[in-house]
Amino acid sequence: MGPAGGYRLKRKGEDFRTIWLKPDDPETVQIIDQRKLPHEFHVYDLRSYQDGIHAIKEMLVRGAPLIGATAAWSLYLAGLRAPGIDRKDFVRQAAIEIGASRPTAVNLRWAIKRVLAAIDAADDDKLIELLRKEAQSICDEDIEISRGIGMHGLSIIEEIAASKPRQAVNILTHCNAGSLATINWGTATAPIYFAHQKGINVHVWVDETRPRNQGSQLTAWELAENEVPHTLIVDNAGGHLMQHGMVDLCIVGTDRTTRRGDVANKIGTYLKALAAFDNDIPFYVALPSTTIDWSIDDGLAEIPIEERDAAEVSHISGVRDDGEIQAVNTVPTQTAIRNFAFDVTPARLITGLITEIGICEATEEGLSRLFSTESQPTDSG
Amino acid sequence: MGPAGGYRLKRKGEDFRTIWLKPDDPETVQIIDQRKLPHEFHVYDLRSYQDGIHAIKEMLVRGAPLIGATAAWSLYLAGLRAPGIDRKDFVRQAAIEIGASRPTAVNLRWAIKRVLAAIDAADDDKLIELLRKEAQSICDEDIEISRGIGMHGLSIIEEIAASKPRQAVNILTHCNAGSLATINWGTATAPIYFAHQKGINVHVWVDETRPRNQGSQLTAWELAENEVPHTLIVDNAGGHLMQHGMVDLCIVGTDRTTRRGDVANKIGTYLKALAAFDNDIPFYVALPSTTIDWSIDDGLAEIPIEERDAAEVSHISGVRDDGEIQAVNTVPTQTAIRNFAFDVTPARLITGLITEIGICEATEEGLSRLFSTESQPTDSG
Repeated sequence: MGPAGGYRLKRKGEDFRTIWLKPDDPETVQIIDQRKLPHEFHVYDLRSYQDGIHAIKEMLVRGAPLIGATAAWSLYLAGLRAPGIDRKDFVRQAAIEIGASRPTAVNLRWAIKRVLAAIDAADDDKLIELLRKEAQSICDEDIEISRGIGMHGLSIIEEIAASKPRQAVNILTHCNAGSLATINWGTATAPIYFAHQKGINVHVWVDETRPRNQGSQLTAWELAENEVPHTLIVDNAGGHLMQHGMVDLCIVGTDRTTRRGDVANKIGTYLKALAAFDNDIPFYVALPSTTIDWSIDDGLAEIPIEERDAAEVSHISGVRDDGEIQAVNTVPTQTAIRNFAFDVTPARLITGLITEIGICEATEEGLSRLFSTESQPTDSG
Repeated sequence: MGPAGGYRLKRKGEDFRTIWLKPDDPETVQIIDQRKLPHEFHVYDLRSYQDGIHAIKEMLVRGAPLIGATAAWSLYLAGLRAPGIDRKDFVRQAAIEIGASRPTAVNLRWAIKRVLAAIDAADDDKLIELLRKEAQSICDEDIEISRGIGMHGLSIIEEIAASKPRQAVNILTHCNAGSLATINWGTATAPIYFAHQKGINVHVWVDETRPRNQGSQLTAWELAENEVPHTLIVDNAGGHLMQHGMVDLCIVGTDRTTRRGDVANKIGTYLKALAAFDNDIPFYVALPSTTIDWSIDDGLAEIPIEERDAAEVSHISGVRDDGEIQAVNTVPTQTAIRNFAFDVTPARLITGLITEIGICEATEEGLSRLFSTESQPTDSG
């Protein structure tokens, strides 16, 4: 558990990352089983790459950057468990399986590509060390990326704060693009944590985010841990708040961003963007450049949208009065269910993209100006 | 339990209304405790007007027309229980209390006004009979209103069906503006039931409708009872479906409609209207003329929006694996919650209003042309 640097996700005063090598056992990677939050803080061991796939698929970890990091650590675990003959082939085979674990997040494939490139020319006896170093670097860099997003996004909040002295800046977010979705700090939450740390009066409207309730179960939890004022609302309520001047700014994350600035994010993001647009409220998307898929233009036509299990909609877990965690079914048994995990928000509804290297318009021109050919990551295309 | 006429809400083959005088006990009014659906079908006795207030406040009954009918029957119960001296005064006092039970629905006040007008000049010995007759008439007329809405709305569905032969007409609805929100047939669902009865291939996308899940718990239940094909989605998903051509038509209900066609309906309706508008999908509001509040213009500025208890958001009821109904808390205890029950959809986003006497544009001109001074209900202003 390396130091995360500065302001960070706290748990009873203890600092940590969302994924780390187990102290005194470098063959085990540890994560937080996020399915159990906020009711239980449970650390989960990954001992094989299959454990990593399980963690990604079953959403013990979620959020594009953390999925990428988990994929990288899973390749390290694959290297550790590979049979002696051709370890690299084994890792490459594992990479194919890991890459298929979730279809929408581009970071997953980005991280795998990066790790495979790093070991491409390596000798077998250096393999494990290289895999470990690469996974560690991806995590360290992710924290720096979040810090970059936080710094740039802070300027937007500061500007709004200056325009309404002594009043709270009300920020609406959807799903969890928080510390728990990254290694630390988050993407959408990084500017909020920076502003809060600076003493700016921020208040966050947290969307519940059905069906998996990442808002009520993860974002609310981590904001509470960091003592950031926040209020939970149902996903249906955001439009009403915006109509009545109760939202100054929206910031959300993204799982994949196209070359022209369309973003695929948690289902329901598009509806909030429409409401922000209709009420002239700035709508920003915070993203590490690793979520940009330079190979595609049209998010609606080209980004595959994952459909997940109906039980995520019908069954809800919570705490009973006696403290036990209990899942209940809320739906008549004769009723069919469909469960789309993401939607695409067209660039035209987005005020700007907050990246680790600066803010730009959600347009092809804006993105290409910010990411000149030199700085465009060559392994993400 | 009078005959409801034609196609109707069924329960194991038995026809019924949502509110009725108890057979063999004309001093008890019966309702379905809708809080227990779809898991349990429980008939609840109202024996006093306070029972009626409880049923409205705690949402054993909901939906503008059924709230109005329950208010009328509550006045009948007030009359029955009134002390001998000045029964009419007692009923008028009860009316004030009943009128305050929920703030947004205009039918509540419409029904009370109508009943009070009916007893205004009556002798005390005729009071009970008049109260009973008026409540019964409100219910009978409500069924005719729903039939009218169904007939007129059917033409919209028929037109779409004609444009896509052999394919399902996909209709999205929000909350429950169904049989359970009225006496029978529903408002938004009436055109759907008529189309289904006529053999048109309809399929309904049912929004879950957080926080009270009227979609998954009531609309899905009554569509299943009536064998209408339907699929449950979370509230977040409607925009995605509309972006991908999976919705042909939206029909929702309304709790209050302004003179120029703004509508207050279940929280989240506005977001769906925005998505329909953005994707050129017709968005209709089905309404009995009793929900029109001719006294106000601007829904956003003038309609009070009820805020309800935080527990509706934090706690969810469902069925455990062992069949028991269980409430669970899904939210961290340190998190504040706000729970707005309705939002206002501006007329500019609405394709048309489907009323019992015809369809009109959601404009002051459209409404006043349809409801000429002669036909405008004088007791609703």
